[in-house]
Amino acid sequence: MARISAGLDKDGALVNLGVAIRARRKALHLSQEALSDAAEIDRSHMGKIERGERNVTFLNIVKIASALGCKASELLVDSNL
Amino acid sequence: MARISAGLDKDGALVNLGVAIRARRKALHLSQEALSDAAEIDRSHMGKIERGERNVTFLNIVKIASALGCKASELLVDSNL
Repeated sequence: MARISAGLDKDGALVNLGVAIRARRKALHLSQEALSDAAEIDRSHMGKIERGERNVTFLNIVKIASALGCKASELLVDSNL
Repeated sequence: MARISAGLDKDGALVNLGVAIRARRKALHLSQEALSDAAEIDRSHMGKIERGERNVTFLNIVKIASALGCKASELLVDSNL
């Protein structure tokens, strides 16, 4: 949930993770709303995660990966992290 | 930072991640204090992360992995996540 302050994500890790989530979501032809519902994450929070604007928690990464039918580690590999 | 309520980590994901962090730390002969300092994470918070008692944020996973000389994705692969 943590809001991120300017400079915290200095290496762009959150942005890269968000890009990876969005790419897998689109490959599955899922709307952001459908993914939010499947992962049981608030829709506006999901939008901020995809834009790299929130320091997403580990359990939410696991839930998002599950909703995308992949492993959490695969999302990170996609992100080159 | 989030404290986790009973049942939230129902699949043991946080516990598995904590075990993976501890295993890599011990393989490097690092104390928990040394890892905390290298990752710039509060020592008592690091203890709770290793025990799976906190829903660690993504940026902290990235910092811990960096301090352990591995990728964040490798920590998750170790955790079978």
